[in-house]
Order: sequence, then structure tokens, then C-alpha cells
Amino acid sequence: MNAALLAPASGLDAFLAEAASLLPPGALLRGEACAPYQADASGCHGQAAAVLLPDSTAAVSALLRASVRHRARLVPQGGRSGLVGGAVPDGSGRQAVLSLERMRRLREFDPLNRSAVAEAGLPLSELNRRLEPHGLWLPIDVGSDPAVGGLVGANTGGSRLLRHGDVRRNLLGLEVVLADEHGSVLDLTAPLRKNNAGIDLKQLFIGSGGALGVITAASWDLKRRDASSLTLFAALPAREAALAALDACEQSFGEMLSAFEVIGAPALDATLRQFPVLRHPLAGSAAGCYALIEFASAMPGLDALLQERAEALLTSLHARGLILDAAFGQAERLWPLRDSLPLALAAEGIPLSFDVGLPRSRLPAFLAAAERWLAAEHPALRLYDFGHFGDGGCHLIALLPRELAASYGPAKLAMLKSALYRLTAEHGGSFSAEHGVGPLNAAFYRKFTGAAAQGLAARLQRLLDPAAALGRHRYD
Amino acid sequence: MNAALLAPASGLDAFLAEAASLLPPGALLRGEACAPYQADASGCHGQAAAVLLPDSTAAVSALLRASVRHRARLVPQGGRSGLVGGAVPDGSGRQAVLSLERMRRLREFDPLNRSAVAEAGLPLSELNRRLEPHGLWLPIDVGSDPAVGGLVGANTGGSRLLRHGDVRRNLLGLEVVLADEHGSVLDLTAPLRKNNAGIDLKQLFIGSGGALGVITAASWDLKRRDASSLTLFAALPAREAALAALDACEQSFGEMLSAFEVIGAPALDATLRQFPVLRHPLAGSAAGCYALIEFASAMPGLDALLQERAEALLTSLHARGLILDAAFGQAERLWPLRDSLPLALAAEGIPLSFDVGLPRSRLPAFLAAAERWLAAEHPALRLYDFGHFGDGGCHLIALLPRELAASYGPAKLAMLKSALYRLTAEHGGSFSAEHGVGPLNAAFYRKFTGAAAQGLAARLQRLLDPAAALGRHRYD
Repeated sequence: MNAALLAPASGLDAFLAEAASLLPPGALLRGEACAPYQADASGCHGQAAAVLLPDSTAAVSALLRASVRHRARLVPQGGRSGLVGGAVPDGSGRQAVLSLERMRRLREFDPLNRSAVAEAGLPLSELNRRLEPHGLWLPIDVGSDPAVGGLVGANTGGSRLLRHGDVRRNLLGLEVVLADEHGSVLDLTAPLRKNNAGIDLKQLFIGSGGALGVITAASWDLKRRDASSLTLFAALPAREAALAALDACEQSFGEMLSAFEVIGAPALDATLRQFPVLRHPLAGSAAGCYALIEFASAMPGLDALLQERAEALLTSLHARGLILDAAFGQAERLWPLRDSLPLALAAEGIPLSFDVGLPRSRLPAFLAAAERWLAAEHPALRLYDFGHFGDGGCHLIALLPRELAASYGPAKLAMLKSALYRLTAEHGGSFSAEHGVGPLNAAFYRKFTGAAAQGLAARLQRLLDPAAALGRHRYD
Repeated sequence: MNAALLAPASGLDAFLAEAASLLPPGALLRGEACAPYQADASGCHGQAAAVLLPDSTAAVSALLRASVRHRARLVPQGGRSGLVGGAVPDGSGRQAVLSLERMRRLREFDPLNRSAVAEAGLPLSELNRRLEPHGLWLPIDVGSDPAVGGLVGANTGGSRLLRHGDVRRNLLGLEVVLADEHGSVLDLTAPLRKNNAGIDLKQLFIGSGGALGVITAASWDLKRRDASSLTLFAALPAREAALAALDACEQSFGEMLSAFEVIGAPALDATLRQFPVLRHPLAGSAAGCYALIEFASAMPGLDALLQERAEALLTSLHARGLILDAAFGQAERLWPLRDSLPLALAAEGIPLSFDVGLPRSRLPAFLAAAERWLAAEHPALRLYDFGHFGDGGCHLIALLPRELAASYGPAKLAMLKSALYRLTAEHGGSFSAEHGVGPLNAAFYRKFTGAAAQGLAARLQRLLDPAAALGRHRYD
């Protein structure tokens, strides 16, 4: 450890004065101008001492060097689409937001290598818009529009993970600025598919929530866009049937199974209640749950084949009692049934949201246990489930009637959440499938992560960020 | 840092005495019995102080605890199929081999989750043999038969990486024993596809060559076995044409392009010369190179479709002058043409092997530059290329005539290698695509890895292995 890192904190003001000298005019915001940068999609909000808007890796490096020297705290921020408050400063007004939004160049694009190097502030939608004419895309499919750096910091998954994988699987390289006294730049952006020349350092930063270093650019392993696809909506008697149907879909379609989203019947009912413009594709079925299934391939001209095979599969699943009814449909008409769900539930009460991941084989048993537990302990609350059944990701919402809000204070809510996560752990699951760790679930990280893993994460953070300069969530 | 780690080394003998008490009879080998454990497939060999054969994670933990206390050096070892000497003790006779070969249980297998937890010593072939009746496999396709732990330590890629990815992409979890004073066990084996509950610690150990911790088990994201496939062999005028043909294959077949291996014409000629049992599939063509192309899908019943589409594609490529001739064939007849190549070349001279990875778009220019350089600087040597063109991985062999062996001493060889790797770096490539870093290329790691990355790797190793107890290659 060197002297600079052990020097007493010279403070935020000294840091901001230096930061102002490092940035062009207008790239350091104070006061009112900070407002848009103080909240994310989780509803979590805070108070920024300032917002820094560097437009180059060199500027990020200079800012990190200064923040380490002055012991100032920076919270890296991308598109503010996060759901755990990981990019939002705390309420102290002593943390500065380091927004990457001005770093949005597509530095390199190599269609023959199917790769692109994009800066951290480039929104996913913009990246894909620029790739579309070449028949390529980064196939991370989420409802929001994160920026590249946030995608990496959260290791975003989404609805097509079954076929395309998460961010980690689609990433070839990273550029990262370290929180050391040099603001060292790790240039690991070489777009190589095979590269085993030592410890793969970039992996450390994927999913770390900006706490181990500042991601300034990423190289992507682009995929060819789907050229054939089929979407269908099925009514199933129960979740166990969904599991068997999922297995059958994989046996018949292999890697072409692109999404297998399951929606509990009560969740679909709520969506249709709140959004009368949406139509029930299978009105009248006495289903326990519904599955939104997508088959797709980048091979052109398979639409008819997919339809023919899907019909045969559905006939066989129907004969086995695994499917009650099914409808083929256009993706843009069926996906809103799934995507409108969180909004619909929020309109019906106060949603307590859980983003859990389990071995998918254990999802039915876990969900049944969660329903039993909630009915016994919190009979006024109702549990709704929807999400990425095919990959074991499940979004659970326990809906608290508004009139009971007063009787559910912070302590009671924390106990409820903790009990549900305990049930998740007992079924071999994770308390955070997709959203990551931030202030909103820091307590659950402490509770449900093994001691050896917590210890190692803390030591890694201290190694990489000895001055505690970075990130909202602390592992140490 | 605690006192135990700073204590003076009490030595190898004290460690071995304690190790003997920790292991069952027959699980600590000395002398002659160590011979089979002293070499790997690279030809690298050393001298083991002893071979330790633990059969449980608890035993590995106890051994690591003891090795840290006594400051003894352990070299973790799997199937000895490595090509850089990473699992072989040095020549000092002071390092003990920690073989995982007795840990070979399939701890869990969950067909509905498509996952399995296998111990480190289980050979890949054995794992796949047990999965076959369920229509599942771990689709890592290499010529050798590594054990699970070695697969992870090397982040093995292979010939079907284009479609199935490397080890990292197929891994869901790890169990790792740390080289700390507790022999801490990190149990990160939960077979979850979505799990973003903090820093993904297991990533650190993938591809680290056993230098950061001992891998004792791994959870796998199994895939459904290919149910449809087509293999073909094409003659192309030159490597630039191979690049255009690769792009066309991806446009026509998307994710079904399973392998695209390119073999330079001189390399194929050598194979056919050395193995008269092999037949030239396209005798008479004046090709600059050949491509072994495989399309495959886990969707059954697509063989005829693949053939029909491939014929159409070949017709179009032929019309564009990108393909001279092509033959469809059975995989088991065509792959030996590619797989026999290293043996064939070894029969014709002294092979100097290079395992490089590049952006695939730059492979033709790199190979041309390498040929030019060798012709100018070492006119007696000839360059042969073959390998994983589709993913940018390329195996180069510079063949040294046996009669010149005496004029190529270690220093001259090192300079030759270094110059070729320098050319690789200048074309944006990596000096080790697949084989990893071990004693055989430690010098090139020092030379061709950025200072910031080397520094961080060294600090990580000191954090995770402060007593320098583990691994053959040191990053610090």
C-alpha cells in the first residue's frame, strides 16, 4: 500500500475543484442540474454532490486518480435502468455521480469478425440500431434501455437468455479504469473469441456493479439477427406441466428454443384487467399458468418448418394432458401480455418484488412453497409469478393491498422479504437472478452469501479499490 | 496477513509427513511410482517430490492448509492433456503433484435442469458417456481427454467453439479450495443460469491454470446432443476466400454453423503423405486451402434440409469463385484429415508450434505476413497452418528440418517464437488462444501482456495464494 492511498482524506471539495479543472466546461453539474442523475428505475433516489460527465477514457482515468488522492466517493452511472439502486448516490450528498453518458462512440465495428467495440455510455438500443443494417445484433433482450457499461456492470440477462446467454456470454473484451493512484487503464478490448493468455481479468468486472473499476468500453461478440421465428401462447394446467412442456420443447427444437416465459393465471388476469386493450389469446381455458414460447433461428426460411413442428409438438403435449390450449401469434401482440405485467400489478396494490433464480427443475416446488408460506403468514397478500421459467429466473410479486400499507413498516417488510429469500435458498436458489446487488438488497447479500465467498469478495474489493472510491454497494 | 502465512517455511519433508497422515494408505506416492505424473501431452516433464491422491474436497482442504503452513509447493493435476506444462512439476524435485484423479464422482445430475455437478478428476469422455443415454452432453470438443478440473483450469475451447462456446460459456458453478490457512472451500456449485448475487467469484479460477485455487468440482450447463448434422469439405483458392465463405455460411445457417476449420494446402498434403490410409476428398483441385465445415442442430430431422441448403450455398459460392470444389461426407471420415495433422507434421520434421488467436477477419493478412517473415528470416523452415478459422483460433507449425536441429539452439528458437508472437500482437492477436500459460510460454506472457494487466494478475495471485503454495506458472 502506498502513501497516497493512506493519506488522510483531503475531502470532497478539493476533489470537485480538481475535477472541474479536468473536465471541459459544462461537464460538471451541481445543484438542481443533478436532479435527473439522482434516481434509477428502482425508485431508489439520493443526493449527488455533483455529476461528472467525462467524454474520454483519459478523463475517467484522471478523475479516478483525483478521487483516490482526495478520498472522494464516485458512483458510476449508465442508463439508470437498474432495479437495485446500484447507480444512485446515497442520501448524504457526499457522493459524486460519474456518468458515462457522454462516452457513446462505436469505436470499432468489424462485420467479418462479428464484433464491435462500444463505449460505456452507448445505449443498447442505439448499438442495435447501428448494427441492424448489417444483419447483426447484441441479443440481450430487456424491457429497459441500459447503456453498455451498465449492461456489463449488471451482467444483464433478459428473456432470450435461454438461447443467447447473458452479457458475459456475449462479451469479448472490456476497457476498465482502475481506482488506483494511477487511474490505470486496463485495455482488454481485443475482440478475440479464443484468448487464454493468463487470468481473464475482465471477468472480475462483469456483474460487479461498478464497485471494482469503471467500465469505459466493451467488445461484443455480435450475433446474426433471427431470420425465422415462431411465437406461441399456451395454456397449461399447472407449473409441473410447464416443466414437462419445456423439456419437450427443447427435445423437439434444441437450440432454437429462444424463450419460455411462464405467467401464473392470476398474473395474466391482472394484466388483462388493467389493460383492456390487451386480449386474452385463449379466453375460457381453466389454466393454472400460461407459457409464452418462442422458437427462432438466424437461418432464414424456417418459418413454415417451425410452425409444422410446433403443431406436431402441441398435439402430442395436448394428448399427454400437458397443454390445454394454444394459439400462434405475432410476437408483437403476445409479448405485451408478459411485459405489461409489472405495471398492471403496480396498479392493483403495492408490489413487493422478488427477482430469484433457481434450478428450473425446482421452480414448481419453490413457487408452491412460497404460496403456502405467504397464505399462512400473510393471508392478506397475494403472490403473482411470471418470468423466465426456461432459465430458472422468476419474478415474484407479493401484492400488498394499499389499505394495509400502514401495517407493513420497514421492519416487517424486511422480515417478509428475508423469509421469502430463505425459502429461495432452501430450494437451491439465488436472491438475485438478474438485478444484481445494490443498496436495495445489500442486507440480503449479507444474509444469503456464504462466509468464504463474502470474505473473498471483500478482499477483492479492498485490493482493487483500497481508497473505497467506487460504487454504491460495498462488499467489504 | 496472519502469522501462519509469514512463518518461515518448515519445509517439504514436514509437509509430506503431515500429508501422509491426512491421506488413506496408498494415496501418497514417492519415487518410481511418481513417474506417470511427471509429464503432460506437451512433452514437458519434471520431478515430483511426491504425488498426492486425495479423494474428497475435505482431503484437498486439509492438504492445502498443511501446504500453506509448511510453505510447500503443490502442482494441481488433472488428465495431463495440457500443452504448456501447467500440470507438471518443475525439475527441482521440491514440488508435489496434487492429482485429482481419485475425485471422479458425478455428484448430481438433473436432466430437467440440464445440469450436472462433476468432480475435478472425472474425464470428459466419461462424463459424456454417462450423459449420452439422456441425449445430453458437454459439447467441448478436443482431440484429447482432459479431466473436468483441467478443462476449467485451461478454459478449453476446441473445434466446435463457434457453436457451443468454451468452458466458461458452459459452466454454471465451481467448487474451489483456496490456498489460505483454513483451506477454505468456496462452494459455488449451484447450477443456476441466472445468478447475479454479487461478484461472480468462480470466474477468477476459469483459465487460471490452477494457480489461484484448486478446482474440486464443476456444475455444467449441459446441451442437447446434435440430432441433425452435415459435414463437408471444400477446396478454396485462398484464405481470403475462406473468410468470405465463412461469412456466407453464417448468413445461410446462422447458429447451425458448428465448425469452420481451415487447413492450408501444404498441411493437407503432409497429412496425406504420412497417412496413406486417408484419402484426398477433392484430389486434383489447385486449392490454396481447404475448409472442413460442419452444420448441426439439436433439432431432429433436419439432415435433408441442411443438405439442400448447403448445395444451394455451394453453388452460389462456386459462382462467386470462392469455392473450387466441395464434397459432402461422413464426419468420421473427414475429421481425421484435420486431426491427424499435428502427428503428420511431427513425422516430417521438428514442429515448432504456435497456438494463436486473432480477430478472424485478420487471419488471412496475419498468415501471409507470417509466411513472408519466415521465408525471409528462416528460409529453411516452412510454415503450416490449420485450425479454428471460424473463431479466429489458428495452430501454426513452423517445421524445422531435422538436419538443422543442431543450428537451432534454445536462444535462437526463443527469438523465432518471440518474433512470430510479435507479429501476432501486431495483428491484434493473442499468443495463447487455447493452451493457456504454463512454463512453456511464461516468457511470452511477460513479453506480450500489458503492464497493468500483469500487475493486477500478480496482485490477485498474491491475494489468493500468499504462501505461493499453488500452481506451476507464477503470475507474480
